[in-house]
Amino acid sequence: MREHFADRLTAAIRSKRTAAVVGLDPLFERLPTELRPQQATTAAAAGALEAFGREVIDLVAAYVPAIKINSAFFEACYEAGVAAYYRLIEHAHLRGLLVIGDVKRGDIGPTAQLYARGHLAQPEFSDVDAARVADAVTVSGYPGEGGVRAFIEAARQTGRGLFVLVRPSDPGADRVHEFGGPRKFYEHMAALVHEWGAGPELIGRCGLSCVGAVVAPKDAAGTRALRDAMPHTVFLVPGYGAQGASAAACRPCFKPDGTAAIVSASRSVIYAFEEQRYRERFGDDWRACVAAACHEFASDIGRLTALGGTV
Amino acid sequence: MREHFADRLTAAIRSKRTAAVVGLDPLFERLPTELRPQQATTAAAAGALEAFGREVIDLVAAYVPAIKINSAFFEACYEAGVAAYYRLIEHAHLRGLLVIGDVKRGDIGPTAQLYARGHLAQPEFSDVDAARVADAVTVSGYPGEGGVRAFIEAARQTGRGLFVLVRPSDPGADRVHEFGGPRKFYEHMAALVHEWGAGPELIGRCGLSCVGAVVAPKDAAGTRALRDAMPHTVFLVPGYGAQGASAAACRPCFKPDGTAAIVSASRSVIYAFEEQRYRERFGDDWRACVAAACHEFASDIGRLTALGGTV
Repeated sequence: MREHFADRLTAAIRSKRTAAVVGLDPLFERLPTELRPQQATTAAAAGALEAFGREVIDLVAAYVPAIKINSAFFEACYEAGVAAYYRLIEHAHLRGLLVIGDVKRGDIGPTAQLYARGHLAQPEFSDVDAARVADAVTVSGYPGEGGVRAFIEAARQTGRGLFVLVRPSDPGADRVHEFGGPRKFYEHMAALVHEWGAGPELIGRCGLSCVGAVVAPKDAAGTRALRDAMPHTVFLVPGYGAQGASAAACRPCFKPDGTAAIVSASRSVIYAFEEQRYRERFGDDWRACVAAACHEFASDIGRLTALGGTV
Repeated sequence: MREHFADRLTAAIRSKRTAAVVGLDPLFERLPTELRPQQATTAAAAGALEAFGREVIDLVAAYVPAIKINSAFFEACYEAGVAAYYRLIEHAHLRGLLVIGDVKRGDIGPTAQLYARGHLAQPEFSDVDAARVADAVTVSGYPGEGGVRAFIEAARQTGRGLFVLVRPSDPGADRVHEFGGPRKFYEHMAALVHEWGAGPELIGRCGLSCVGAVVAPKDAAGTRALRDAMPHTVFLVPGYGAQGASAAACRPCFKPDGTAAIVSASRSVIYAFEEQRYRERFGDDWRACVAAACHEFASDIGRLTALGGTV
């Protein structure tokens, strides 16, 4: 069996010297002109997304330990898009990247088992290679403990992982998560995620669990409180770049020693060719724009975590 | 444009004289022997699920106004399963059924727009007929208001609907939803869903919104309080049958006049051929078992809502 997810992630971060993760959220209407689909069919659109995704993976593979592929953008092209999603997972694995399937799935226990089958477990079909399965997925804990435990069981059995939504980056999320008295709902979810990820069979040699959490860097004090409440939990941190958070704002998501978090950026990297500052340097060479943006992002996050004990 | 979702649902319930909805949650290892896949490939498994689904749809179409197709069970067969999911939506439409896509999707606003594209909006591709799109989907509101509003916008534009998770049926959901002081988190979500579904452009002629809620029938007092707090909200009620709730337990989900809720049953109908009481009557004729179980379920719920003002 493959090693524990958190150990594999830790090793990959050390190897690339950064906890930066590129998010692949491609809209076919924003692809580079040469890749935009010529026909309005699902096959053409999915083919364009896949071609772009393969190139992005090839461009960023040297800089980052992992890629996060957002299922929604592929599901928009129906089953053709879903097929492209799985092939891109396989391609990223071929390029030596860890893959986080950003699927935000969640349901009651018996149903969550089926989501785990399609997105996290060992494939039970002769025509699906294990390389088509992501190393970790994002999970919604809203439908309850039974559903999360179905994903945890699949992760435990296969050396994979999951990231449960605790504090999403949507501004409107506050109306949902800030519910409660002195203790907010997202803090309650954090306590549950900490508990769900505890136990020797879920903790890797690095001391971190295969059960992580999605934690957006909102107020620094709130983030530090979450960090303290979840000592063995890896944070998947959205919000950097196009969503407005700086590297410094992400710092409280890491432990003082610079471990236990990964920061994802999607639009600021994959659409870098739309930005004036890259166009001025690279003209119409969209690949150079994406590579440069990824390199800057990876360096930015790399400097952050190299800070070590100086929070 | 098609009529408002709640008006179409209300008309279909009147026509079939029941608010019973069959849930299609097929596991290939539990299919009737003759349909079980012969090869361990995604195509064989998805083909078996689709063949079974088509027969179930044909068997239940006379008894119920709608079918709820659970995406998880199809996603377990990767893209081949997803293709079957969409074809079954089309087949159910051909049989005159409304279709609820039980996808439990949810994410921050920009991503939820993409989920809405794949699952609720007008198809933008020449090879996808609008009949492949469900009439409504289930949505997780956990990632925030922005995500739910993306689904609402797609629903409003196309005469479709959504059901936001408020109180799931998982026993373990209590640890998540019972959070809070005198006011619980699920009550907070109910207030948000009520607000999100308000406004003349979202309310149909029948007085109900295209924004519904998933509400499991737990304690009757709690359910009645939710019913009162969400006067224009259609409840999608899981938990009947295999999950243990009786028709009487579902009654508080309806308004006193018997409107504004639909009750779904999945395993107790589609696996009726595993049950002794049907096998005694119909032997190995699995179709007769499913049809009989659906007829009983539809009648059970039909009697309930015919009660009118007698809560």
